[in-house]
Amino acid sequence: MGGDHAPTEAVAGALKATADGYDVVLVGDAPVLQSELDAQGGSLPIVHAREVIDMGEDPGRAVREKPENSIAVAARLVKSGEARALVSAGSTGAVLAVAATVLRRLPGVLRPAIASIFPTLRSPTVVLDCGANPECKPEHLVQFAHMGSLVASTYLGLDAPRVGLVNIGEEAGKGRSLDREAYSLLAASDLNFVGNVEGRDLATDRADVFVTDGFTGNVLLKTTEGAVQLTTQLATEALAGAPTRAVAGVLPAMETVRQRLDHEAQGGAHLLGTAGVVVVAHGQSSRHAIASAIEIAADGADRRLAEQVAERLGNAVV
Amino acid sequence: MGGDHAPTEAVAGALKATADGYDVVLVGDAPVLQSELDAQGGSLPIVHAREVIDMGEDPGRAVREKPENSIAVAARLVKSGEARALVSAGSTGAVLAVAATVLRRLPGVLRPAIASIFPTLRSPTVVLDCGANPECKPEHLVQFAHMGSLVASTYLGLDAPRVGLVNIGEEAGKGRSLDREAYSLLAASDLNFVGNVEGRDLATDRADVFVTDGFTGNVLLKTTEGAVQLTTQLATEALAGAPTRAVAGVLPAMETVRQRLDHEAQGGAHLLGTAGVVVVAHGQSSRHAIASAIEIAADGADRRLAEQVAERLGNAVV
Repeated sequence: MGGDHAPTEAVAGALKATADGYDVVLVGDAPVLQSELDAQGGSLPIVHAREVIDMGEDPGRAVREKPENSIAVAARLVKSGEARALVSAGSTGAVLAVAATVLRRLPGVLRPAIASIFPTLRSPTVVLDCGANPECKPEHLVQFAHMGSLVASTYLGLDAPRVGLVNIGEEAGKGRSLDREAYSLLAASDLNFVGNVEGRDLATDRADVFVTDGFTGNVLLKTTEGAVQLTTQLATEALAGAPTRAVAGVLPAMETVRQRLDHEAQGGAHLLGTAGVVVVAHGQSSRHAIASAIEIAADGADRRLAEQVAERLGNAVV
Repeated sequence: MGGDHAPTEAVAGALKATADGYDVVLVGDAPVLQSELDAQGGSLPIVHAREVIDMGEDPGRAVREKPENSIAVAARLVKSGEARALVSAGSTGAVLAVAATVLRRLPGVLRPAIASIFPTLRSPTVVLDCGANPECKPEHLVQFAHMGSLVASTYLGLDAPRVGLVNIGEEAGKGRSLDREAYSLLAASDLNFVGNVEGRDLATDRADVFVTDGFTGNVLLKTTEGAVQLTTQLATEALAGAPTRAVAGVLPAMETVRQRLDHEAQGGAHLLGTAGVVVVAHGQSSRHAIASAIEIAADGADRRLAEQVAERLGNAVV
């Protein structure tokens, strides 16, 4: 039970998801969670965890020194089959460390990766890795491409998702040695590799899957958030000077845009490659984002996402 | 004389800049340029260059094999003092290669870097490196921080520009080994280092200078472009369904936003650290972007930017 607005928003999101038909178990400090449930007039099963990992802690050390942290307790519920998926808005580093030590990597997976689904003009784009692996090798990127393709096939219904390599130019040979080597491996793979893509291709329709290292993917994710927020702020300021009646007339249209681009609409991102469904929610998640993350997690469990990844990477030649 | 829309937009931009009071010399295929000038009814001095580097060519090899390419000819005009600055919308790689071989690095500069000035809600943000160095060492990032601070002081009039390190989390210790080492060096420097920043901080007011390697900076730049374009496209689609009169009422406000975020408004980015003022314009530059790039270049020459960089990096302890 974590996140910047825990426990209020997390509990409210869990209650919202329950109302939508999902079965949710809260994991964390039981008295705190119970009193929050009471305050919100709801009821949910609670599994007590007597330790918590703070956002500022070194994740690896915190997970070692606090084996009873709430993320680890929740992960053990997934491992034992008592829960079908884990959702956390806590420290992403801690979720990664717990996933690695409690759930473990699936056979054949070199590095689990975080896959975000970006809204775009036409069909959404899967971007990975969005932060699990700041430093990568070319073969990691190829595995990300396979996992991203799988998500695009499963969630977006695409037969042969187009895979693009995030780079600083369209031509082959661009980028770092990581990117040049990954380019060669991707071109030689059985993936539908369409070559290099750039951040601006989020606004075009060049690829369904954007593959990159976890540092770049995270920058891409957060820069999109920043640019959308900047645009929204500028529009709000500009509209303050426009005729009131005109503004009222376009508000529904503007609200549609805001919702389409709201990073909370996709409240969570799958951590792919671990033995069990894990969804990482934004640290600043509202109740709506938490409810959405729970829905995404249940969806991943329904689609047997972990098993699919194991099958895919067991068969893929990397 | 390069760029995706050369020579039409480049010539038109040069004529526009001339009308605004700048002295422009065209460098390229003289007959082609003259006929374009004739077609547009303008007159400008032309220096002939009998070779041209295409966007798809390997820049290093192209510069070696085509010593009479237009970028090199223009750079020699800067070196000899016949021109005060070089503007190119051609291959950025070729501009870098020419800058390195013809103009050369300033004493004390490890790596020249491209500094873009991003529009934000309040004062603009200087982001570097935006693509000159896909792979960097920590000490390069420290030099970028000094050069970026200089630009923020000179162009934005700031006394002690706040320098942020682009990273994937706020806490020290985040990111790649590059980022962690750069963090330590920046914290120990005499710069006004405010710690890590993220892409979303383009919408806040946490730093005046964003420092990162050329791969990440380029991704940040192009992702911002993509996100702004995406937002604009979605808004246009959404407004198509809104009442016509209301849309007409808010159009001026919307146009203000579009202009504020238009990447062409800042038509060019300084390549800092070379002996001579060099401005890299967007490959897809319109005439307005070219004219803006020429203005930026003239401004850099007026402010003796290259001399200032030499002085700063000669004195900075790196």
